Formats: sequence, structure tokens, C-alpha cells
Amino acid sequence: MAPEGKDLRETNKNLDAVVQVLKEEQQRTGIKLLWGTACLFAHPRYVHGAATSCNADVFAYAAAQVKKALEVTHELNGEGYVFWGGREGYSTLLNTNLKREMDHLAAFLHMAVDYKKKLGFEGQFYIEPKPKEPTKHQYDSDAAACLNFLREYDLIDHLKLNLETNHATLAGHTMQHELEVAAAANALGSIDANTGDELLGWDTDQFPTSVYLTAQIMLTILKMGGFTTGGTNFDAKVRRESFEPIDLFYAHIGGMDAFARGLKIAAAIRKDGRLTEFVKKRYSSWDSGIGGKIEKGKAGFKELEAYMLKKGEVAANLSGRQEFLENLINEFI
Amino acid sequence: MAPEGKDLRETNKNLDAVVQVLKEEQQRTGIKLLWGTACLFAHPRYVHGAATSCNADVFAYAAAQVKKALEVTHELNGEGYVFWGGREGYSTLLNTNLKREMDHLAAFLHMAVDYKKKLGFEGQFYIEPKPKEPTKHQYDSDAAACLNFLREYDLIDHLKLNLETNHATLAGHTMQHELEVAAAANALGSIDANTGDELLGWDTDQFPTSVYLTAQIMLTILKMGGFTTGGTNFDAKVRRESFEPIDLFYAHIGGMDAFARGLKIAAAIRKDGRLTEFVKKRYSSWDSGIGGKIEKGKAGFKELEAYMLKKGEVAANLSGRQEFLENLINEFI
Amino acid sequence: MAPEGKDLRETNKNLDAVVQVLKEEQQRTGIKLLWGTACLFAHPRYVHGAATSCNADVFAYAAAQVKKALEVTHELNGEGYVFWGGREGYSTLLNTNLKREMDHLAAFLHMAVDYKKKLGFEGQFYIEPKPKEPTKHQYDSDAAACLNFLREYDLIDHLKLNLETNHATLAGHTMQHELEVAAAANALGSIDANTGDELLGWDTDQFPTSVYLTAQIMLTILKMGGFTTGGTNFDAKVRRESFEPIDLFYAHIGGMDAFARGLKIAAAIRKDGRLTEFVKKRYSSWDSGIGGKIEKGKAGFKELEAYMLKKGEVAANLSGRQEFLENLINEFI
Amino acid sequence: MAPEGKDLRETNKNLDAVVQVLKEEQQRTGIKLLWGTACLFAHPRYVHGAATSCNADVFAYAAAQVKKALEVTHELNGEGYVFWGGREGYSTLLNTNLKREMDHLAAFLHMAVDYKKKLGFEGQFYIEPKPKEPTKHQYDSDAAACLNFLREYDLIDHLKLNLETNHATLAGHTMQHELEVAAAANALGSIDANTGDELLGWDTDQFPTSVYLTAQIMLTILKMGGFTTGGTNFDAKVRRESFEPIDLFYAHIGGMDAFARGLKIAAAIRKDGRLTEFVKKRYSSWDSGIGGKIEKGKAGFKELEAYMLKKGEVAANLSGRQEFLENLINEFI
Repeated sequence: MAPEGKDLRETNKNLDAVVQVLKEEQQRTGIKLLWGTACLFAHPRYVHGAATSCNADVFAYAAAQVKKALEVTHELNGEGYVFWGGREGYSTLLNTNLKREMDHLAAFLHMAVDYKKKLGFEGQFYIEPKPKEPTKHQYDSDAAACLNFLREYDLIDHLKLNLETNHATLAGHTMQHELEVAAAANALGSIDANTGDELLGWDTDQFPTSVYLTAQIMLTILKMGGFTTGGTNFDAKVRRESFEPIDLFYAHIGGMDAFARGLKIAAAIRKDGRLTEFVKKRYSSWDSGIGGKIEKGKAGFKELEAYMLKKGEVAANLSGRQEFLENLINEFI
Repeated sequence: MAPEGKDLRETNKNLDAVVQVLKEEQQRTGIKLLWGTACLFAHPRYVHGAATSCNADVFAYAAAQVKKALEVTHELNGEGYVFWGGREGYSTLLNTNLKREMDHLAAFLHMAVDYKKKLGFEGQFYIEPKPKEPTKHQYDSDAAACLNFLREYDLIDHLKLNLETNHATLAGHTMQHELEVAAAANALGSIDANTGDELLGWDTDQFPTSVYLTAQIMLTILKMGGFTTGGTNFDAKVRRESFEPIDLFYAHIGGMDAFARGLKIAAAIRKDGRLTEFVKKRYSSWDSGIGGKIEKGKAGFKELEAYMLKKGEVAANLSGRQEFLENLINEFI
Repeated sequence: MAPEGKDLRETNKNLDAVVQVLKEEQQRTGIKLLWGTACLFAHPRYVHGAATSCNADVFAYAAAQVKKALEVTHELNGEGYVFWGGREGYSTLLNTNLKREMDHLAAFLHMAVDYKKKLGFEGQFYIEPKPKEPTKHQYDSDAAACLNFLREYDLIDHLKLNLETNHATLAGHTMQHELEVAAAANALGSIDANTGDELLGWDTDQFPTSVYLTAQIMLTILKMGGFTTGGTNFDAKVRRESFEPIDLFYAHIGGMDAFARGLKIAAAIRKDGRLTEFVKKRYSSWDSGIGGKIEKGKAGFKELEAYMLKKGEVAANLSGRQEFLENLINEFI
Repeated sequence: MAPEGKDLRETNKNLDAVVQVLKEEQQRTGIKLLWGTACLFAHPRYVHGAATSCNADVFAYAAAQVKKALEVTHELNGEGYVFWGGREGYSTLLNTNLKREMDHLAAFLHMAVDYKKKLGFEGQFYIEPKPKEPTKHQYDSDAAACLNFLREYDLIDHLKLNLETNHATLAGHTMQHELEVAAAANALGSIDANTGDELLGWDTDQFPTSVYLTAQIMLTILKMGGFTTGGTNFDAKVRRESFEPIDLFYAHIGGMDAFARGLKIAAAIRKDGRLTEFVKKRYSSWDSGIGGKIEKGKAGFKELEAYMLKKGEVAANLSGRQEFLENLINEFI
């Protein structure tokens, strides 16, 4: 938002000046701040990462920068703060001490958690998974990698995930997969609206227009009861070939419309009830009988062997009905 | 190993007959059993998964089958047991309750841990990550996903990872990445020697012949002090076009030779010392000064900001020397 | 369609018996045959390919089989014949004489062209691109590779392309790209309705349900004036988990509905006219002036340099309006 | 090489000044020019392509620029000229007239061929395939696509291919595949030494260090009798993290050494003779008998059916020996 100065002090001063304007604009328009963040990847000092740099000074600079960003976010009444590990990874494992770098990243986040308390900032912390680009491999490569990291370093109670479709597909997952994984861990905090091109291997940061995609996203969000934190942010870019100001309007309007349609479609599918009912029924063998016992922890290998020796073979499987369900979705598109 | 019978009882009987022969052959040849496993993916009953099937009966059958496999592995003095989640995933999220399926998988593994104790089997349990094929997505998709799952369900002390190159690349990672992730979590237990084709998207299960690959694998294994459990197993297949018995010999000899060369290369690189020294030196800013303070937990955002306000900008970054290091490796190939 | 016999003669006899029934069923129902083909990839004799086998006998067998298939197709009044090079490629280039194999493939197709004339069969010949699976690499890997082959061996007047979405995406192209490439060469002959999963690397052969996809397909087909040969065939499969007979109905009905909706959407977009008009206008600098001269062949490097030295810099570029156009499509979904 | 001026005239003048220095340096050092080229992709005027721009003026500017580049290349005694279609493609097919753009590209190349004659420049023309990045899809996407284009527009006698490993893998092919396809068409003219990362989806432009790769490249080049035009050029880049001048030396020396080792390995494999002999023998059924007849054009479907009806089934297939051959290569690494 603000230009880098000749040193940290001047950079912070530049930022303060911009924040003043933002605050006035917030009051004038009533627009609120979804979340704040700091750019820890564009400046050459971050060439080897920020919190995971091999250079301890870089960690210190990043810490100072995030401290300032937290203060500014707090001042602007931001509802959250996103950690986007743009260079927290490696270009080659040959020169990398992966364990030491991850320890540093955890230390950094714990410092942020501590400082948040000191500051009295009550917004939600998010981490945004991204597998690669600009680096060969980033530590926050997907939802599972982030959750694993957060669990290992006792950070799981302090950060939720901010998921983006294009980062999901770059990691080889559907967006719906990432959403379901995060939601299952009670860690789905916010979404980044950008989408990508499944046939290209870099972060195309496109505006979403597929209503299949937005309907899937909304199905998961509605299923988990809606967001209690976060929301939907656009940091998508118009294509390099779309360089006129009006393109920004087409893009944002189109993206927002796609999400609005996705929400309506998902709500209609839920109101219809057939999809939810199908899934519920599909797992009904777990609601009672041997399945119920297993879920209640009342059966072990011995009991299950006895049960199956008596029965000989399993009760018939039913079709997964993928084609039927895909048709069902199409009724609402 | 043994044909399925008309029901579980007969299947178990068939297995007992084969195990008797295996035991005699073990005594005759002195060959030991690295690990046992059960096939919970080929039979149509496992079409929707085994421990993660929507059909509770299938879970029960799988439990009985693993119980028997554990007993047999114990009887044959197996040094471990591998869980390979061949169908523990989904074909479409439309019909899937991901959270409930993962809860079931965890329950299954806890039952296995319990039964292992009852049995007195002291071998190591392993889980083998694989992202997809035959399903669209498997829960054990990569090392991080497995570790996340094991941590979430308090299984992290009971299972280590058995890693395969082809499964790593199908998940979009290098084998070295997966090894380093597992080793950093103290969870690298064993490796599956199969490799794949980085330009193909299915599990080609090829024999490894690249000495770059085997040297990288051995570098990580030597760095962690060698295996204390597990080893290197081949379940690679000769190509469909390599259908003569002699092809099996070419393949196994070539694969084993590649690992032997990889071990020699890795040992030579470590003896040479330049690689280890380079990495050590690269992180030297963390051994003392501000880096040392951070690692000891003696600095927070406030101290780091003060440090950097005073300093203004970071100490110069050094080149990552990727090209130099790649050349260095080539000296040993 | 018919089981293999103990030798070619018996296999042909088996086929004759089945063809008799098919003929009667055609007369009874009025259903016509879109195209015929022969399976030159499933039997172990084709392990190294059919027309591109290193074993000349295999070429001879394949020739006999295609001869019979052409006769049968002719007898059933088939409107075309598809060559699907299921194994016409290689597993490793180490053992492969690529040039010799491609020469053989061309010889094979020329024999087919000759025999078609002898037979008086006037249906269209098609070749179906597919990049890989089961082999590592197939010669007919995409539309451009097929066209290049057909041009090199003087077959371009005798075969058109039969395109499939999943084969397009396995080759790294969108289906629309493949359609446009084929149509630009006047070689788009027919389409295979199967679609795939862009995140999986094997031929999933799914039924199409995305109306974005089917609308794109129909836009190209309508733009070229509709098919004069061929049509839309399904050789999609229900998923392994969709094993009940009713799944076949859900799948075919859903796929056909998706194409019907795609056709309606494409027709509406064309009737609306904005998309066509946008593209026409975008290239309007080529309709007259310097562009017109270039297209008429009336300018060379010298004239163009003189023109530009005088002008100094190009007339302003206009935005490509990708986001606007994506929104426009969404108006019709 | 030279900065853009305020218009074409000044830009050309800037270039002339630099060329003068280059010429003197050539005379001083004896270093020759492998090939010349023009940058038709970095300046914003080329946002929609150069020869394939929707803006005819851009075509004219590109023509003037290539005219000048040809003159300069001729003046510097360049041995060839490379067309690198950095933006000759599309970002979205929605706004693209693919056929018209390809017609323009062909017109452009024909103008270049004409001007080359006028100029008396006798160097070889090359086209360098690249599938994508920065655009979504480029027309010169791989060797087959280039050859198809050159054949369609009667340019096949005027351009050869300049192949790069990373462009091959981005297109889903091995470098060896691209080399073999080009060599089979007698169109392999030169190679670009850059390699990439098979797990990343963008043009990483790395220096080659795998001796497996360089040995494969040299095997094909030696098999075709060596280059009669062209050579091996580096336009690889050091990694962003390798920013010290010495990294350039490590990189170029390492890359050149890798090619030198590859050449020695390939020469040794050829001298050994087993690989060549294996492939020759594998196709021996084509040297006489029914195979010989087919190759001589003395058999059609009828004769082959008669032959096979008599024989009943094919002569036994032999193993493709992939594993044996991979081991054989390893003997020379």
C-alpha cells in the first residue's frame, strides 16, 4: 500500500500516512476491512524466504513488518490477519535445512500470537496454503500440510485457513477437497475468490466465473453453517491482455455475480434436500447395528472378526450414483 | 498370497496353508519378512473403501482381515506391518461424508494398535501415502496429509511412513521432499523402491534406475542416521511389455544396483563434507547473535522491531548456489 | 462384439454370427451405425502395438482384422470407420525405431484407403487422437500430431479427426483448442462425448455434464456449419462404483442432456450475436489498409518497414476483454 | 541487445551502434554467432502476439523488426536465425480467430523466406516450439504442431526446429521424444540447452546437469549423424536465488560439462553396440518375409488376410526388455 522507504523507520512512516487516508475513507464509505496482511515476498531481502530465511536478520525484519501490519490492521478494525507464505519454502533441497526452517516459521507465528494478545487485537489469524510459485515448494502447500504444521507446533487453536481455488488446483486438489478438509478440522476461516486454469501450472489468479465451482464452494460453506469469521476476498487480477480500467469492472462484477449465483444454487440444492438425504442414507449402516457399535467404540478386531466369521460376507454394496448426483446438480445450474 | 475362499473362514484357512509353506521356506533360506500387509482394495467388496467404506460391514470384514494379517505377520516374525489405503478415499465428494470416513479410518487404526498389543507383536506400523488411483483422491495423499491425520487422531506415536517415489511424484512432490518431511517429523520408517514416470499421471510402479534419485534418497536416510526400522522393499512391476521371466531378474538386479550405487554416492558426498558444510554455514546467522536469541525463545516482535529499527536493513543475503551444488553432486555421479 | 476364436478364421466366423443379429436389430429398430472400428489393443498380440508393432506378423493380423471390420461396417451401412491407435506408440524410446514404426502406420492406413475403394465403402475414415495410456506415448497424441502425420504421408484427404475431451486434456489442451485446430484444417469429423478429470492423469472416460464444456463444443461445431460427417458418440463408462444397471441410464441421459443444453446455449449465443461481432471487430484492422494488403499478399518486409518507419509506432492495442466475454457466456448458462 | 528508441527509426539506430561493437568483438575474439533472433514478446505492443496479433500494425512492426534482425544477423555472419513465438498464441479462444492468426503467421514466415533470399543470407531458419507461458496456448506448442504448421503452409523446406528440454516437458513430452520426432522429419536443426523442473508448470529455464538427459540428447544427435546446422545454445538463467556473478560461471561450466559427459556416454554406448544391435534385431521381422513385402509395398489387406488365415496366429512376441535396456544405459553413467 505504501512505498518502501530508505530504512524500516521510513517505511513505517510511509505506511502511517497511507493508513490515515484509509481510515478516513473507511469512515466516509462505511467499508470495513476483512483482513490485513504484509508483503513478505516481493522485496529482494525475502529472496530466501521471510520467517524461513537462512538469514536471521530477514526473520527480524519480517517480524518488525508483521508487528506494524498487525498494529495497522487493528487500527483499521480489521476482522482478521492473513499469513501468506509467498516465499516460505525452498528452491532446492540441496541447500535447505527444512526442519530448522519450519521451526523458525513456528516461532514466528507464536510471536505473532503473543503480540496479538498484547495488542488486544481479536481478529482471526489465517494461513493461506499455496504449493509453489515463486518457489519450487512452499511449506504451506495445501490444507493438510498447513494443518499438520499447525498441530505439530501447537498453533492449531490460533490460525484458520484462507483457501484459494487456484492454490488448491496447483496442489492437485479440487477446491471442494480443500474446503472439506479444512471444514472437517474446524479450520475453514475464509476464502480467496481467485481461480486458475487447470491446464496451466502457474498462479493465473483469474476471476471465478464457473457457477459449478461457486456452487460447490457454497455447498460446503452452507453445510458448515456459514462463515463465523472471514468472507470472500478478491485478489484476482485481470489478464495482462485486459488492460483498460473498465476490465476491472467487468471482472469484479462477473466474479461477484458468479458467487451470488453459486450461493443461490447451493441454497436451492439444500432446500431440495435430495443430495443431503442421499449422503445421509448412504452411511445409514453406521447409524445402528455393527456400524453403530464401531462408532461408539464398542467393538474391536476380535468382535468384528467374530461378527464376520458368522456372517461370511458383507451386506451388498450399493452404487455410489456419481452420474445421478452430477445430473442432480445440473438441475440447479 | 492365498486365494479367497467362499467365506471369511475358508479364506483364512487358505491363508494358513500358505503361511505354513512360507514359514518352512523362511527356515530353509534364512530370508526374513520386512513387513506384512493385507489387500483391502482388489475385491469388489472394497469398491467404496475398506475402513472408510460407507458400508459398516465392509469395515468389519477389513478388520477381520487385518486381524488375521497381523497374526500371520507375527507368526512369520515380520518386522513391521504396512497399511496401504488403496481405496481409502473417494471418487466424488458429492456422495461422501469425508469427516465421518476419516473418523472411521482412525477408529480402525486404533483397533489395530490395540490388537497389536494384545498379540504381543512388536513390529513397527507403517502407513504408505498415495494421492490417487484407483480413486480420485485418497486420504493418505502425501506425507503431510498422513502426519496431519495421525496427529489429529492421536496415532502419531504408533505409525511411521513408508514412502514411495512414484506416490510422491503423483502428489506433486519430489521423493526427497517427502523423505525430508517425514524425517523432520521423526516418522520416516521405510521406503518402497518403486519409481514412476514424471510425465505420466498414473502409478507406473517402475524399477528405479536413476542414480540421482537413489543418491538423494540415501542422502536423507544417512542424514537421519539410517533406518532403525524398515528397509527398502520392491513392489515394482516389470512393464507389460517385459513379459519373460528373465525380465524379473534384470529389473530386480538393476533396481538393487541403483540403490547400491546411490548409497555409495551419498556416502562419498558425506565423506567429502562440502555439501554438509555449505548448508551448515548457510544457516550460521542462527547459531548466535539475533538468530541465536530467536532460536532460544529470547526475542519477540518488540525486540526484533527494535533491533531492526536500529539496523535499518538486513545483513546482505548470500546466493543460494543451486548451480554450484548441482555441479557438486555431479562430481559424485 | 464377438469372442476371439482359436484362430483368425474362427474369430471372423464368430463376428459374422453377431453381425447377423445386429443387422436384424438395425432393421427392427431403425437405429443406424455411426461408425465401425476394430479392437487392436486389448489382445496380448498387440502388446507392442498393431500397425506399429516391431513384429511384422502383428501388422498382418491387424490388417486382416481391419479388413474384416471394414466389410462388416459396410454391411451394416456404417457412416464411417474410426482408427483408434490404442497401442500405436511406445513404452520406452530405448527400444523403439520411431521413424520405421510411423512408416508402417502410414502403410497400414494407405492399405485401408485402398481396400475401402475396392469394397465400395463410402463412409468417412477417422483417426482419434490420444496422447498416452496404456502406452507412455502414442503417435496420434493430439490433433496437430495427427494432422502432421496425415500430411507427411499424403493421407490428409482420406481421414478426418474424431476428438474426445479427455484425450484433449490428457494432451494438455482444452477440447475447444483441439476442435479449433481440427476445424481450421477442415478435418473435424466427429466427436467422442467422453470427458475426463483435469486433475487426474489417466483416461477416466466420464460422461460429460458440464454445460460450459458442451456449449464450447457446440460453438465450434455450429461455427463450422455443423457436421457433414460423423456425430457424437458415447464410449464413456460409468464409474467403477456405479455398478447397477440404472446407472447406465442416469449416465447416458445426463450426458445427452448436457449436449442438448450445450447446443441450445451455443445457438442462443450465436443468435445474440455479440460474441461473433466482438471477434469480427477485433480483427477489423485486417479487413483493409495495411492489414488488407498483407492478407492479399501485396506487402513484404520492405513495404512493412517503410510503412512503420513512417508511422513510428503501432496503432493502439485494445483490451482482449477476456473477463467481459466470460461474463457474456455466463449470461447464457 | 539495444534499448528501444522513441520510434522504430531510433530503435534501429541504437541497434546499429551495438552491432558495430559486436562485430569488433567478434574479430577480436574469433567467437562466431550461432544464430540471431528478435524479441517480439516483451514490449507491450506485442501483448496480443506479433505476427498473430489482431492488430495489423503490430504485424507490420514485427516485420520491420525481423527485417532488421535478419540484416544484422547477416552482417555478423550468423549461421542461422530463430523464430521464437513467445506470444504467438492466445489467452482465451473466446476472442480468437485461430485460423486467421495462423494464416498471418504463415504469411510472416513466407515474407522472411523471401527477404532472406533478397538479402543473400544463407543461414538456416529455425522455429522453437513452446506450448505455453506467457500465453495460455502457443501455436508452436511442440515439434509435431510446428511440423504440421510448416507442412500446411509449404514452409517445411525452409525451417528446421530448435528444441529445448523445458519446452518439451511443458508440452508433456520427453526431450528425447521431441528430438526423435524432429529427426524423423529431417527437421532437427539445433538445440537449446535449458532444462526445467518436471514437477513445475512454468518455464524454469534451468541449466542442465542430468547426464541421463544429456546422454539421451546426444544419442539422438549422433544417430542422425550429428548436426549439419545449428548447435547447442544456452539461454538458461541462474535461479533468482543465485544472484552473484560467480553463479553464472558455475552454471555455464556445469551445463557445458553435463553436455560433454553426455556426448562421451552416448559415444561409448554407440561404440559398445549392444543398444543399436538390440533395436535392429527387434525389428528384424521387417527385413524379409511378410514384413519385407509390406515395406516394399507388395502386400495389401487381401494378401495379409490370406497370409494370416493360413497362419492362424502371429509369431510369438518378444519382451521389449525395458529394464534390461535401462540397466545397460546405467553401465555407461
